Amino acid sequence: MDDRELLNVVMGVVGRENCLDDCAELPCGEQVMVVTTDMLHRTTDFVEGMTDWQAGWMSAAVTLSDIASMGAAPKYLLIAVGLDDWKSLSGVMQGAQDCCTRFGATIIGGDIDRHGELTVVTTGLGLVARDSIVRRKGARPGDLICITGTPGQAQARLDGYLQFEKALFEPQPRVEEGQQLGRAGVSAMMDDSDGIALSLYDLAGINGCGFAIDTKKLPLAPGIPPEQARELALHGGGDYELIFTIAPDKFPVAGVLSTVIGTVVAEKAVTADGIPLARRGYQHRWE
Amino acid sequence: MDDRELLNVVMGVVGRENCLDDCAELPCGEQVMVVTTDMLHRTTDFVEGMTDWQAGWMSAAVTLSDIASMGAAPKYLLIAVGLDDWKSLSGVMQGAQDCCTRFGATIIGGDIDRHGELTVVTTGLGLVARDSIVRRKGARPGDLICITGTPGQAQARLDGYLQFEKALFEPQPRVEEGQQLGRAGVSAMMDDSDGIALSLYDLAGINGCGFAIDTKKLPLAPGIPPEQARELALHGGGDYELIFTIAPDKFPVAGVLSTVIGTVVAEKAVTADGIPLARRGYQHRWE
Repeated sequence: MDDRELLNVVMGVVGRENCLDDCAELPCGEQVMVVTTDMLHRTTDFVEGMTDWQAGWMSAAVTLSDIASMGAAPKYLLIAVGLDDWKSLSGVMQGAQDCCTRFGATIIGGDIDRHGELTVVTTGLGLVARDSIVRRKGARPGDLICITGTPGQAQARLDGYLQFEKALFEPQPRVEEGQQLGRAGVSAMMDDSDGIALSLYDLAGINGCGFAIDTKKLPLAPGIPPEQARELALHGGGDYELIFTIAPDKFPVAGVLSTVIGTVVAEKAVTADGIPLARRGYQHRWE
Repeated sequence: MDDRELLNVVMGVVGRENCLDDCAELPCGEQVMVVTTDMLHRTTDFVEGMTDWQAGWMSAAVTLSDIASMGAAPKYLLIAVGLDDWKSLSGVMQGAQDCCTRFGATIIGGDIDRHGELTVVTTGLGLVARDSIVRRKGARPGDLICITGTPGQAQARLDGYLQFEKALFEPQPRVEEGQQLGRAGVSAMMDDSDGIALSLYDLAGINGCGFAIDTKKLPLAPGIPPEQARELALHGGGDYELIFTIAPDKFPVAGVLSTVIGTVVAEKAVTADGIPLARRGYQHRWE
């Protein structure tokens, strides 16, 4: 049982339409409010060596990334902290606060609880103009598949390449890029936090079309054998780059550093260099 | 170190004004959106004997109660579930969904995580007209102190009175009452989830005035020796009644069953029957 299978259980209760995107959407005056929540905790997410400040930063960053992936501007964050040691609170809060300040959001509420391990749940709210919102659905055959930045670095740190520690411990959500991409009219977008492969399968499932990538075009983390760097980018977790599709005549988008890695195709399959791409990446598992 | 002391740590980072009420407030068109988040988990909150459905119900209920205590109508809920056993998910989601349906809210998003113990974090969003919102601050000397329902029942179940199981396992947030009280212009309001005594101290601290109650007026849970029932109401946890203050000429509020238990006074003290009330109730503690 993995978390994508469990999502089907949730869909059975609350309806499929409430489970498709990185954020939910609410009408809010002339704009759309997007809302998202994420649970992180010591065992799974706060890797050994991370400080409390970094745990707080990461908790805010993953949620701001979900907001960015809708093309929205993050505005508000709520943070619930479960503490095994009360002395962690100050660092966690300061890290979350610094991340919010960096990306234009304000912490407006939260909860404190005693817990068996450090657990942080962040809920983010963002705003976007109606015509700039981007969803996972919207890709059309012929669109380019693109990614921001250089994926695979967070997983590289997990696999022992210590020079990539900052990528794993202090992820930088693509907040400005997400809004620029939204205004530029990209057709679909999500972040690649579970790896490129699983993201492409999610997009293919929702769009009813195929995603064909060319692994030679993948930007690769430096200082790692290319074959391994490609594997990290495709199947690693912990990155917060934006994967998006865009009509060729709209690319490139001014001010956004991104790389074309493939093309949306009619045939429903996810392929790399013409052969099926392994459906593998970061997933929670239960026995 | 208890959670009210830790709140001072949070205030030091995010500012005192973001920590005063049960919900944060955001402008949303012509209305105000209120937002709140709560973390519950097996060890502390989901008592032995509770079903997964009840854990889900309770998780939604505590958050809807915070929205009710601002006089707002609950609209949306996000739910992050940390699972030690994936088989709990369906029950938890159905319980939360049924509570939301009962009180007019919709589940619009969430997260699933693997966790050492069942942990549920609910974030609720509600809407209220600008002139009907109620905060903890606003009580004035001369106002009546009132409470809905019959407090002390949840703690009674914890202390062995099994007939009150439903009060503890399936709390009923005062959603309709909160909105009626808001429209009627009550001056201050909060829920009594940590007991009446701590709630009165919170209100006294924020309002800069005193709260004098008459314990003979407290509605008491039936079938319990009166002295013990009073203790449960004043210092027990797990209830979700609304405590509010109201100008005498506005009381009673049509359609809301509530009891006058005292009067707001100028002198800054919390008293019961003329002597200081013990500052004791439900609190998380860290060593």
